[in-house]
Amino acid sequence: MRTAVGIIGAGPAGLLLARLLHLAGIDSVVLESRDRAYVEHRQRAGILEQGTVDALRAAGAGARMDREGLRHDGIELRFAGRRHRVDFSGLAGGRSVMVYAQTEVCKDLIALQTKEGGPLLFEAEALAVEGADTDRPRIRFRHAGREDVLECDYAVGCDGFRGVARDAFPAALTRTFERTYPYAWLGILVDVAPSHDELVYARHDRGFALLSMRSPHVSRLYLQVPAGTEAHEWRDDDIWAELERRIETTDGRRLERGPITQKSVTPMRSYVHEPLRYGRLLLAGDAAHIVPPTGAKGLNLAVGDVVTLARALTHEQETGSARLLDAYSATCLRRVWQAERFSYDMTTLLHRAPDATAFEDRLQLARLERIASSRAAETDLAEAYTGFPFD
Amino acid sequence: MRTAVGIIGAGPAGLLLARLLHLAGIDSVVLESRDRAYVEHRQRAGILEQGTVDALRAAGAGARMDREGLRHDGIELRFAGRRHRVDFSGLAGGRSVMVYAQTEVCKDLIALQTKEGGPLLFEAEALAVEGADTDRPRIRFRHAGREDVLECDYAVGCDGFRGVARDAFPAALTRTFERTYPYAWLGILVDVAPSHDELVYARHDRGFALLSMRSPHVSRLYLQVPAGTEAHEWRDDDIWAELERRIETTDGRRLERGPITQKSVTPMRSYVHEPLRYGRLLLAGDAAHIVPPTGAKGLNLAVGDVVTLARALTHEQETGSARLLDAYSATCLRRVWQAERFSYDMTTLLHRAPDATAFEDRLQLARLERIASSRAAETDLAEAYTGFPFD
Repeated sequence: MRTAVGIIGAGPAGLLLARLLHLAGIDSVVLESRDRAYVEHRQRAGILEQGTVDALRAAGAGARMDREGLRHDGIELRFAGRRHRVDFSGLAGGRSVMVYAQTEVCKDLIALQTKEGGPLLFEAEALAVEGADTDRPRIRFRHAGREDVLECDYAVGCDGFRGVARDAFPAALTRTFERTYPYAWLGILVDVAPSHDELVYARHDRGFALLSMRSPHVSRLYLQVPAGTEAHEWRDDDIWAELERRIETTDGRRLERGPITQKSVTPMRSYVHEPLRYGRLLLAGDAAHIVPPTGAKGLNLAVGDVVTLARALTHEQETGSARLLDAYSATCLRRVWQAERFSYDMTTLLHRAPDATAFEDRLQLARLERIASSRAAETDLAEAYTGFPFD
Repeated sequence: MRTAVGIIGAGPAGLLLARLLHLAGIDSVVLESRDRAYVEHRQRAGILEQGTVDALRAAGAGARMDREGLRHDGIELRFAGRRHRVDFSGLAGGRSVMVYAQTEVCKDLIALQTKEGGPLLFEAEALAVEGADTDRPRIRFRHAGREDVLECDYAVGCDGFRGVARDAFPAALTRTFERTYPYAWLGILVDVAPSHDELVYARHDRGFALLSMRSPHVSRLYLQVPAGTEAHEWRDDDIWAELERRIETTDGRRLERGPITQKSVTPMRSYVHEPLRYGRLLLAGDAAHIVPPTGAKGLNLAVGDVVTLARALTHEQETGSARLLDAYSATCLRRVWQAERFSYDMTTLLHRAPDATAFEDRLQLARLERIASSRAAETDLAEAYTGFPFD
């Protein structure tokens, strides 16, 4: 097989890249190791920054999002028995975020791709990227029981943290940066209307909790748990009781309960792989960087990467100039490191470390108090939450 | 001896408190364990927040400060070969800071006190505060070779981190919060005009450096060194060479050198003692809380405490109401914890921890980059640096 751009992975990064290239008249092939049902149902992120919303609309993939997504103009912080709303529209120049699940983004992009786009092969497992430093990189993959090769002008690894694309970077040209956290998120998906209109981020001595949602009928709730926890260790009733303790429902209202349709544990990691490019191999999304989920930057970073990359590939196609491609890694890494910083800060602001000292507990409360009392500090948070510019 | 307010310690906190009480017609006695020359020459802080400047003026102690002090409207951050000026006047509503050494503040206040105020006893070493929970607390002290007792309506511990006043708080009513840092500041005082108009805070892979000053003719320079370093371990030439490496004088200009008249190491600690009041004993300044020197909050916190305390004591004297005294501890602690947070954040933003990971190094640079590129983040810094309100 041959194509202009070989894309490994049909998550939001790979699918949106294929879509943007299609709109620019550039051929691509997407290889996805899982089957379609898996990709369309794996629970991941659900908060789209303004820039991501704009990118999906520009890609012609925004119609259902605009019908079904929930625009949010703020979040609520809870700490020390207090409630403080951060008003995005008032602080961040009218920017907002959209609640629309990653699964739905993927369904919309898959539908477009299969209707109008180039080949999208499910159950096509990439094995290795070869010849990244030549004019003709090759992606070896296994599909329908046999090995095959996809030859391309550019290979793009959108294959996530466990993907193979990153392995093709020579160790001597690569630096990685990593941090793991001693806690994780126990997440539940519940068939019940959300108890609160906006997301509620709660800092509590017993640990962090988050009230979120996927739709007007589906709630998504999280509890900080020790790293290594397994989901089955938590009984449903214990999850509800713990959520209510941490959320501190002072008005006496209990959380709306409903059937838990999914229960899982998300590990927390910060990770950056530098650079994002080696020869004709490029990385985008989780293949290059991971953030802890606090602040919802992961999906949005992936979209930022492929918007930048599609523009660079289109520019080269149209002008013959590799200027934007040459700048791709540095351009993305500036935004990536700001998102890493923000995600780390939001995480350490709200989670209780198992070895936290009394001094560190007070620092957390002083930081939250600062956000609640200083327009500058609150604006800094609102701007970062609603997103760093895609350029 | 008897007085209305017995004050232990003739640092800026004790001296300013005595002055403010004198202006309100309230008698006090100040006991200082050292001699006058020591108090007037020990090198400490040198940056006065707007609120501190205002308080000294209101106390009638601002004349020489206004003549000789240097008004600063910004600081410079250096990192990764970049220079970024934080413009206080543009960001923090016209607020600024004043460079005027603590030694000079003390000289001015001692001169006023000896001319107009109540007794100020040097070489009077407080031994203990007794009866803090009675109507008539007593300060036992040793002066001129014999022990004596100062009876008072209120005893105030302005006796610093190593003072005795704090010992009179019952352990069961007390909580302390502490953090030590694995580094310290090697500071030199130099008889030479400052190389730069404003303070320069430099983050460097080799460690933090700070260019500061005490007057138009005296420079004050600092280097991050490992905790436990002794000043004599550093030769003068090595200090200059290391300062120049960390400051990255890219324009080829070397630092102005001159005779080093003093060389010392400042340990770095964060510490808070809660509450600030037990019965008729009150704490102010370093006796109750310590911050690392980055961001210059220590002296200013002490001034904030005694401004609040003088107002509370005056209010009680004038109205008989203990309302402000009852609120003293909580009022100060709100400001104290914001200063603790800011000092901690400035310290970790700029110093290189001995065990810093590559990820943490990049986070530091991303935070500095954020300050340099976001007006909101920069305003947050400028507002905190120029000071939290005294109320």
